Amino acid sequence: MAGNSFGQLFRITTFGESHGTAIGVIIDGCPSNLTLDLDFIQSELDKRKPGQSKITTQRKESDTVQILSGVFEGKTTGTPIAMLIPNEDQRSKDYAHIKDAYRPSHADYTYDAKYGHRDHRGGGRSSARETAARVAAGAVAKLLLAHHGIEIFGHVSAVGTINAPQLAQISISELLEIRESNIVRCADPATANQMIELIDNIRLEGDTIGGKISCIVKNCPVGLGEPVFDKLHADLGKAMLSINAVHGFDYGSGFDGSEMRGSEHNDLFIPPAEGQKAQNFKTLTNFSGGIQGGISNGMDISFRVAFKPVATIMQSQPSLDSAGNSSNVQGKGRHDPCVVPRAVAIVEAMAALVLADHLLRDKVVRV
Amino acid sequence: MAGNSFGQLFRITTFGESHGTAIGVIIDGCPSNLTLDLDFIQSELDKRKPGQSKITTQRKESDTVQILSGVFEGKTTGTPIAMLIPNEDQRSKDYAHIKDAYRPSHADYTYDAKYGHRDHRGGGRSSARETAARVAAGAVAKLLLAHHGIEIFGHVSAVGTINAPQLAQISISELLEIRESNIVRCADPATANQMIELIDNIRLEGDTIGGKISCIVKNCPVGLGEPVFDKLHADLGKAMLSINAVHGFDYGSGFDGSEMRGSEHNDLFIPPAEGQKAQNFKTLTNFSGGIQGGISNGMDISFRVAFKPVATIMQSQPSLDSAGNSSNVQGKGRHDPCVVPRAVAIVEAMAALVLADHLLRDKVVRV
Amino acid sequence: MAGNSFGQLFRITTFGESHGTAIGVIIDGCPSNLTLDLDFIQSELDKRKPGQSKITTQRKESDTVQILSGVFEGKTTGTPIAMLIPNEDQRSKDYAHIKDAYRPSHADYTYDAKYGHRDHRGGGRSSARETAARVAAGAVAKLLLAHHGIEIFGHVSAVGTINAPQLAQISISELLEIRESNIVRCADPATANQMIELIDNIRLEGDTIGGKISCIVKNCPVGLGEPVFDKLHADLGKAMLSINAVHGFDYGSGFDGSEMRGSEHNDLFIPPAEGQKAQNFKTLTNFSGGIQGGISNGMDISFRVAFKPVATIMQSQPSLDSAGNSSNVQGKGRHDPCVVPRAVAIVEAMAALVLADHLLRDKVVRV
Amino acid sequence: MAGNSFGQLFRITTFGESHGTAIGVIIDGCPSNLTLDLDFIQSELDKRKPGQSKITTQRKESDTVQILSGVFEGKTTGTPIAMLIPNEDQRSKDYAHIKDAYRPSHADYTYDAKYGHRDHRGGGRSSARETAARVAAGAVAKLLLAHHGIEIFGHVSAVGTINAPQLAQISISELLEIRESNIVRCADPATANQMIELIDNIRLEGDTIGGKISCIVKNCPVGLGEPVFDKLHADLGKAMLSINAVHGFDYGSGFDGSEMRGSEHNDLFIPPAEGQKAQNFKTLTNFSGGIQGGISNGMDISFRVAFKPVATIMQSQPSLDSAGNSSNVQGKGRHDPCVVPRAVAIVEAMAALVLADHLLRDKVVRV
Repeated sequence: MAGNSFGQLFRITTFGESHGTAIGVIIDGCPSNLTLDLDFIQSELDKRKPGQSKITTQRKESDTVQILSGVFEGKTTGTPIAMLIPNEDQRSKDYAHIKDAYRPSHADYTYDAKYGHRDHRGGGRSSARETAARVAAGAVAKLLLAHHGIEIFGHVSAVGTINAPQLAQISISELLEIRESNIVRCADPATANQMIELIDNIRLEGDTIGGKISCIVKNCPVGLGEPVFDKLHADLGKAMLSINAVHGFDYGSGFDGSEMRGSEHNDLFIPPAEGQKAQNFKTLTNFSGGIQGGISNGMDISFRVAFKPVATIMQSQPSLDSAGNSSNVQGKGRHDPCVVPRAVAIVEAMAALVLADHLLRDKVVRV
Repeated sequence: MAGNSFGQLFRITTFGESHGTAIGVIIDGCPSNLTLDLDFIQSELDKRKPGQSKITTQRKESDTVQILSGVFEGKTTGTPIAMLIPNEDQRSKDYAHIKDAYRPSHADYTYDAKYGHRDHRGGGRSSARETAARVAAGAVAKLLLAHHGIEIFGHVSAVGTINAPQLAQISISELLEIRESNIVRCADPATANQMIELIDNIRLEGDTIGGKISCIVKNCPVGLGEPVFDKLHADLGKAMLSINAVHGFDYGSGFDGSEMRGSEHNDLFIPPAEGQKAQNFKTLTNFSGGIQGGISNGMDISFRVAFKPVATIMQSQPSLDSAGNSSNVQGKGRHDPCVVPRAVAIVEAMAALVLADHLLRDKVVRV
Repeated sequence: MAGNSFGQLFRITTFGESHGTAIGVIIDGCPSNLTLDLDFIQSELDKRKPGQSKITTQRKESDTVQILSGVFEGKTTGTPIAMLIPNEDQRSKDYAHIKDAYRPSHADYTYDAKYGHRDHRGGGRSSARETAARVAAGAVAKLLLAHHGIEIFGHVSAVGTINAPQLAQISISELLEIRESNIVRCADPATANQMIELIDNIRLEGDTIGGKISCIVKNCPVGLGEPVFDKLHADLGKAMLSINAVHGFDYGSGFDGSEMRGSEHNDLFIPPAEGQKAQNFKTLTNFSGGIQGGISNGMDISFRVAFKPVATIMQSQPSLDSAGNSSNVQGKGRHDPCVVPRAVAIVEAMAALVLADHLLRDKVVRV
Repeated sequence: MAGNSFGQLFRITTFGESHGTAIGVIIDGCPSNLTLDLDFIQSELDKRKPGQSKITTQRKESDTVQILSGVFEGKTTGTPIAMLIPNEDQRSKDYAHIKDAYRPSHADYTYDAKYGHRDHRGGGRSSARETAARVAAGAVAKLLLAHHGIEIFGHVSAVGTINAPQLAQISISELLEIRESNIVRCADPATANQMIELIDNIRLEGDTIGGKISCIVKNCPVGLGEPVFDKLHADLGKAMLSINAVHGFDYGSGFDGSEMRGSEHNDLFIPPAEGQKAQNFKTLTNFSGGIQGGISNGMDISFRVAFKPVATIMQSQPSLDSAGNSSNVQGKGRHDPCVVPRAVAIVEAMAALVLADHLLRDKVVRV
């Protein structure tokens, strides 16, 4: 079974190569009667698109999305929503030098070994360009979630060893405003400046750097997640790990929590005020990250995603060709010195897809 | 869609509650003609079963597995393999006190909110007892993998802040021998002693502690993993995150890799010796953790799993009942002060299930 | 992907061989809070069990079902429901003569060719004994449907060339009473007598005969069915065709409808009475069989299922062994001269599973 | 779970409405290294396209297919193959009169009741135009099957009560030549003439007529089909029943077989000649239709598909609008008086999709 679909009830299938005609996605299972705000979908894509700033790749793609089906008079019809994003600025000749070369820490060798035939141009299917289709689908998922009051916010919480402080306790819209005011997409302006300086220096050295994105989900209803395998955080984890360059995921207390004791880690309940419903129990702390037993508990969901440094560097590296002969490769395409600023949109999109799917899945568990 | 199945081609479905009649699993998709070594399956279950040592729960379950179908004259027939593990030592009265109480950081509240009707005895379906079924199925997966020469090894690499050193470069069988020689299942004897002492002290305090398990896969063929969503590490991550108490997963360079630069992180190829096949390219370093572009590259696969401390502590904690009234709960059942020693078998089992599934999935990708 | 699961949201997985320890089924996705009437489930199994009358096989199986999980205090919990039916009266020695022989028009040869290793005893997994697990699961589905007022009724409408007249326009409970008053399970007593006489004569000749089952679904809500592939009748068709010995399926006007003209075949709407809701439009005729565009339209759903004659006859037939040598086989086990009387329960069960699944699937299509 | 995907390993997802921008399909799971013959794919579409002859709808669509991804240098890469067919000749104004009217025996009412919002133009998603996407995908499946020597042939075996004789025992290529020499696509020229005359007369009356398509599969290897639910004929049945206007399916002896006795119905083996392999056992008769126990046995697979008459007639019929008010509708669009001539391509395509899927599924059942 090939792996280009994601989700069970709100299900997407993506297609397309970096230098092919187009990339795109079909959403099957989006409920009918949802108003589709095309401007919103495009604005989400704009956050991921290349060429946004000096610290992103200079490839120029407008990433203009076309909706081919599933929408009538501005609203979804319950039939499959197909979305197409034509490729515009392919410079396939930039990749002629790697036609037969396996770039270190890329997918060239493994794709060739697996499939025996590979579109090498721009990384083909293994290019992060594929994630534009996810962002388009994720924007639709966000519209469904917004209909239920659910909000998602991600930002760059680390670049290299520069870490942002905890998020300020302000609204999502305020956080968004801060985040979008700087090109690295960090919700703390001072940290953002340090991050930008670091990335810019690394770019000038022809090198790349890793980073982390932190994400929260607000107003998630109690009850999302399907034990025992499709726990909410398990599906979030898979979603994040499926993004190019991601090497780690944790939620709530995460890796740090494994060093703690139960007596300090347990999230004690806040006794509800008079008349409060049992469905809305809150906790004093939130080491659980909003998920207990794989099911959302109504507290903020929080998780982190770790990205390795981009493999394509503008320095010469020894490599091999498919026959095993030694050669040197040096990045010639247009690449990001650090992926996390553009990946914020991808992380949010994948989170939205997971939550939309589980929102639907939860509708059928009770008689 | 309920979430009690895992895998696509090598697919398991588990059932059962902690204090019900039995737990069990159906494997659908195990290839025919595989010799099933029942002793091996039982020995895997023995590594997970309760009551093994002073640092595990004292519940007594023999966890004796019965095979009901799918095997004839010692070999699989290609039909579903049903395995049953009767529950023996349920002390449901230990749980009478929590019939209406929601234990902090447990799944009591979320299950009730989601389903509206819950078997509270011993945690019901949310109990880690369910993982015995995974270990039984994972043992079958291991037999399939062994048939292809693939080996999996996990061990306790951290308890609290006590961390084990890197694995010695010795064979899996030697590592296993060391690991099984100590009750905490750490591959480094000196560290094991410290870990055991820590857990024992914490147990005496009525508290619990988190930990980490590290796992490697040796001899994995090149080519396993299905881009773009079912990347090998994404499925491994989901598998691990679906285990009770897991809060984090990373692979290869993991979270640390997000602080690195591309020039140091890239795994350079070792030029193959004369006559070596292109399918067997090796790399000098292995920050990729044996997976590139979501596809195994033939190097050792390595990943880490972070476990939070067990929520049930033998100390009185404030809690709420389902009506929102305050009460106190204190662990009365038999619980583990630290889950990682028993969870090694679960981590290995889930890894085996992922690899067996991808081994089959890879069989159909080329004409 | 192995094929032992059926349904998407109300999903079953069956296991077990004819002469193994037990057969059984897991239901994953049954909503919580459904009252499970065990007596009803057992009574459904009793309609399918062997040894009911002189015109069925004389194998004695009580087919007593055990529920292992998913039910607490008489109600479903939303977790997997595992049901087990132990095998009691295996006479495996009756099958020693076919260990290496391929019985004509059986699955012996194809299973061997496909899997290379086969439990030959009693037909192993290819035995219709597997359908007992379907009937158990179907009974649970029926309870869910009954909760929504949906009723299913099947009966033997043909044995050989003896055809029953159209169903009388009486209630399902009245139809059931008539059907259960005769051992062939035909809703027309006079036809039933002819059918019984025919089957009994054929049995005495050591031969077998085919037949048809007709089924209706009453009170199905408008809107079930998922275009374009999972049309309600497409899933019903697959469900029926998956039953042993079924060679044909049609619904509504069926095969006869292919000889008609549009002007006579179209089902004209009955103008609704004052105040009637648009969701309840009825039609004058029902050539559509209650399904239009793959979606139920609120009229009675009707379909037919054609069963070939049982392959095992009590006459000597030339055969081959696995090495290709000629031999003779003659039925020695205990077999049905005609399967349709016992298959009524199976047809109803499979219909219930399809409808329960689509009832849940329909819950998520609108915002 | 929405229903716009078909197949497990060779899996398609279709999208698009009759009068939208385009229709299309993604194939996920087509093996790599398959040479894609675009001319062949287009020629398959040409057999289904409208406007072919006087007995088909006069809508003009070139149905020119574009491949957007998954193919590089003429061969598949193992990544998703997206195919797009732009809509060209939408006369949506032809449908203005039915914006609020529910046409009898159409899907207007059921779509509205299910989704609450509907693209009424040309029937929207319920239009048979969607099947063009299936034919495109089926053509790729046929190329995969051809690579394994498997051939599929369907033809119009009945229009109304005019039935074609059994297929002549000639090669598939000869049958194809005869079939394509007449506009009704019947493999018997004399019968074809009668059928054409009947359809033409019915067309002049503004009426429509049903018919049947018979299909055979030659050179199918032994072993395809996945018991117990995904029997080969069960998946074929679902595939056919998912085609617009299909009301019935049978295989092998089919409905007629239900009137037969076991002693005449059993397919006796032909003793293999010296040295013939056991995998290639043949039978004297083929009432089993090439499938036993749900698994192909190497004989020709044969099945029939019954189509009801097209619901759109050029005569005035009483109808209702969505508010329940009476009105009259009369077909104004361009419609087929009989669908079977164009549906031959669809039946073959769906058969090819089922076989391609099972060809892949069979690859993983043995160690």
